[in-house]
Amino acid sequence: MERKKIAIVGVGLIGGSLALQLNEKGIAAGLIGVEASEEHAKRALELNLVDQILPLDEAVQQSEVIILAIPVDQMNQLLPQILDRISNQIVFDAGSTKEHLVELIKDHPKRGRFVATHPMWGTEYSGPQAAVKQAFENKAVVICDANDSDADAVNWVKKLYGKIGMHLLEMESGAHDLHAAYVSHISHITSFALANTVLEKEKEDRAIFEMASAGFESTVRLAKSNPAMWVPIFRQNRENVLDVLNEHISQLRKFKSCLEKENYEYLQELIENANKIRRIIK
Amino acid sequence: MERKKIAIVGVGLIGGSLALQLNEKGIAAGLIGVEASEEHAKRALELNLVDQILPLDEAVQQSEVIILAIPVDQMNQLLPQILDRISNQIVFDAGSTKEHLVELIKDHPKRGRFVATHPMWGTEYSGPQAAVKQAFENKAVVICDANDSDADAVNWVKKLYGKIGMHLLEMESGAHDLHAAYVSHISHITSFALANTVLEKEKEDRAIFEMASAGFESTVRLAKSNPAMWVPIFRQNRENVLDVLNEHISQLRKFKSCLEKENYEYLQELIENANKIRRIIK
Repeated sequence: MERKKIAIVGVGLIGGSLALQLNEKGIAAGLIGVEASEEHAKRALELNLVDQILPLDEAVQQSEVIILAIPVDQMNQLLPQILDRISNQIVFDAGSTKEHLVELIKDHPKRGRFVATHPMWGTEYSGPQAAVKQAFENKAVVICDANDSDADAVNWVKKLYGKIGMHLLEMESGAHDLHAAYVSHISHITSFALANTVLEKEKEDRAIFEMASAGFESTVRLAKSNPAMWVPIFRQNRENVLDVLNEHISQLRKFKSCLEKENYEYLQELIENANKIRRIIK
Repeated sequence: MERKKIAIVGVGLIGGSLALQLNEKGIAAGLIGVEASEEHAKRALELNLVDQILPLDEAVQQSEVIILAIPVDQMNQLLPQILDRISNQIVFDAGSTKEHLVELIKDHPKRGRFVATHPMWGTEYSGPQAAVKQAFENKAVVICDANDSDADAVNWVKKLYGKIGMHLLEMESGAHDLHAAYVSHISHITSFALANTVLEKEKEDRAIFEMASAGFESTVRLAKSNPAMWVPIFRQNRENVLDVLNEHISQLRKFKSCLEKENYEYLQELIENANKIRRIIK
């Protein structure tokens, strides 16, 4: 594929991990970072994630591709401004919500230069020091509303994701946000709430620390995730998240009711039903 | 440590993994399996987990140590019967709940021969084929009510756990059950309920399969756990589990209320509080 000069806006967990892959796979003819945080900018250079840090305007001017890897609230503010400034560059995002974002720019004269994407990878850590080599490999990336983007832009972005080892899914923004609420956003809420539950009930840190099993660690790991990233996601995807959260509370109430009424036959059924997740998650 | 002839009652995930460790560390002078399931018995022999499978009575007679690795409801039935039959053997269990079990045998003349233990390790799989080498290493094992057991029995069991790489914690049965509800049992309920939530809401298996992130997989992994093991645990530890489950539902309602009222400041606070789990779980 054609190497291009690339600017990454937000050199944190996602932007930094993308930078590592773009370097490794020889996709970038030069990598410019844009960072609001001076500390992150310094760290991104120290870690050789990008070649240089520039102000947004200069980065946009000097790049053929602009990647947005910033929290989704900042994305909503910045994307229209960037589209105002580009000529024929390709712009794509790596955010976790899409519907509001594409609505904001639907009538923009440069709409076609933007490709809405969501690489389904992340960890509970953040910042440039959290960047991981070989991230994204064998994970899914969702391309949303591809028909609203110019063909050359979509094709180049697809090639990029293919080259870093992701498999492509295409869907509408609305469907994406719905599925993302089910297979990603609700997991974060349950994990945050589980951490708060245990911190509230278990006053002995030492007992948690010493007794915590691998099972507890895996269910609570996401609770370490950054609120600067997650508050905007829940805000952007509020209705879908509320819908699945209501269902989740009602599912938990079934377990509660079984225990209160000592209805162990139904408890067995609830668990057998949950076991069906085996057919989907190996 | 002195090698002893050991019987393992229940050669499944826990019993089988213990068998592998006892063989590897040269702790057993012979391993006898006791299995209610013919299929599991056959598989345990094929996998060389134990030297032979015997009926319970013969196994008890021919062993110096009897390990109980069966669901906690069966444990309650079987332990008194086994104590009726032993002379001076050491008996210990590997179950996830303790309070009711020790209450049942508190006046048994052989109470001192029993050591109540909970090695804090497991996976979401079950049966002898789920047995794992080097399981238990660097995990905690809780020894409950050690003062109610004979010193020689406790010492030998502690040496065994030390030799397979576990670190020892001691506490009362009641405290154990409370902490276990917080750092293990509630995680399983949240994971079962999350699986049921997603299976209920997401009618497109393919979307879950393709989009499921590592985060979703880690929060839902425990939902594959065996009801034959978990229904009895929730039943035995009903009051503690209900208590922590009520707290968990109320924590989830806080997230719901934030989203309903669009109170993103409080949502931020809830997540920042959850982040405190970082000080405990690295």
